[in-house]
Amino acid sequence: MNGAGLAGAPAARLAILCGAGAFPLEVAADARRAGRDPFLVGLVGSSDAAIEAYPHVWVRIGEVGKLFAALKGRGVTELAMVGAVTRPELSDLRLDWGAIRRAGELAQLFRRGDNGLLVGLAAIFEREGVRVVGAHEIAPRLVAPEGPLGAHAPGAEDDGDIAFGARLLGALSEFDAGQCAVVAAGRVLAIEAAEGTDAMLARVAEMRSVGRLKSRGPSGVLVKAPKRGQDLRLDMPAIGPGTVAGAARASLRGIALAAGAVLMVERERCVGDADAAGLFIAGFAP
Amino acid sequence: MNGAGLAGAPAARLAILCGAGAFPLEVAADARRAGRDPFLVGLVGSSDAAIEAYPHVWVRIGEVGKLFAALKGRGVTELAMVGAVTRPELSDLRLDWGAIRRAGELAQLFRRGDNGLLVGLAAIFEREGVRVVGAHEIAPRLVAPEGPLGAHAPGAEDDGDIAFGARLLGALSEFDAGQCAVVAAGRVLAIEAAEGTDAMLARVAEMRSVGRLKSRGPSGVLVKAPKRGQDLRLDMPAIGPGTVAGAARASLRGIALAAGAVLMVERERCVGDADAAGLFIAGFAP
Repeated sequence: MNGAGLAGAPAARLAILCGAGAFPLEVAADARRAGRDPFLVGLVGSSDAAIEAYPHVWVRIGEVGKLFAALKGRGVTELAMVGAVTRPELSDLRLDWGAIRRAGELAQLFRRGDNGLLVGLAAIFEREGVRVVGAHEIAPRLVAPEGPLGAHAPGAEDDGDIAFGARLLGALSEFDAGQCAVVAAGRVLAIEAAEGTDAMLARVAEMRSVGRLKSRGPSGVLVKAPKRGQDLRLDMPAIGPGTVAGAARASLRGIALAAGAVLMVERERCVGDADAAGLFIAGFAP
Repeated sequence: MNGAGLAGAPAARLAILCGAGAFPLEVAADARRAGRDPFLVGLVGSSDAAIEAYPHVWVRIGEVGKLFAALKGRGVTELAMVGAVTRPELSDLRLDWGAIRRAGELAQLFRRGDNGLLVGLAAIFEREGVRVVGAHEIAPRLVAPEGPLGAHAPGAEDDGDIAFGARLLGALSEFDAGQCAVVAAGRVLAIEAAEGTDAMLARVAEMRSVGRLKSRGPSGVLVKAPKRGQDLRLDMPAIGPGTVAGAARASLRGIALAAGAVLMVERERCVGDADAAGLFIAGFAP
């Protein structure tokens, strides 16, 4: 009667804590394709209403008690945090009793940096019996593989720039600075810090348009990789169609991603847009 | 009759190859204050006409023969290259016979990066018996000393940011990337690459104005230092009043310079402007 369920160990019940945008839905669809039955947690004011196509619950940030009750009620044992959430101010939170019980601990978290906050949240989930997993573990199709992904591939000079950029990002790791840089023929054109990837690419486009950078035709590679030791379950570098459009406007030759460690939001569209713009997208062995 | 001249070794005759702006004139005035009698070489289309207040010659870029004849005629044995010169295209040069004699070598130089070009030029001067010296050697007053320079001084947290920024720039050295970064409370806000210091500071101001960076009051330090192993005779990091204005617009707390290794263009005005804006300017032991 229940043969399928008895055939192996029951799959852990998966929840997805959904940040903004469509990416949590992409991950949910991929998880479903892999035979999982994800339970979606929507954050009021952040998550896309389309999460309602799945079993779901809406919570406000701060409704920690409601969140844990919902996860427990559904038998959730694994949770992925997917998509960006604007960091709230502690004073803006509507804390419920579940939060107030943990108020001291939460206040501690809010004194940390973004990464410390996420690490602390993960620890709280795990203590409640919910294992935190990364989007790359439940939707591996959305993670950059090794090698070229579309119609174009990096050439020998590009390979040199990719290796150089990867070494540069490695050296920056300990300073918790950017996760990407633009390298052209061995020259560093731009390094990301607090401005983000899109602004960095816009800067390269601007340098070309004012003649600060000169080249005949496209040049340079956007290289993106996580910091060494970065916990990919909590904070994984990502690109999307906006990144591809930015790279095209910056007249780059392509985009190189640390294989297995960078998410591709709207992967098919990224690859299609890159093909159309003459850009390569390729994963490199980190 | 010629007692003064006989009292010691005769001072080497100094020439200053003048790039754009007033800084070559500042260096010349300082050299004169130190008892030197500098001979100025103006580059047609680049140098300030005010160089004519000194013994001088005008040459076009490419008039290598005329340049060496002038240096020889004046008995020049030391030369400083001061101020920025827009890198010419080899094909734009008006080569004279002196250049054509050296055409193979010059063509080689133009295949190198900026630094290689300068190193090669220095080698050519030295082979002609002209020692290349740095602005810091002939105008030490214009080089950042150790410690605070104006009315404001860095505090303990600033000292931490300065040390962090200096380590970051050290780690970037081998990649020949930027010479400066902005660090605030241990967080890297911006790293300079091809865009230059002014554009980097404008970016920090922009991130604040759009709310991407939040702080109550000024925060962050601009840290500037040469790359490890950089030949300061040929290419020395510099700040000027524009840098101070940019740091003020970016709401920084101050500017930290590697002592003995960063030039201050219009030093008095830099310090006065920083004082007025509430910024510190301080040299740190590299």
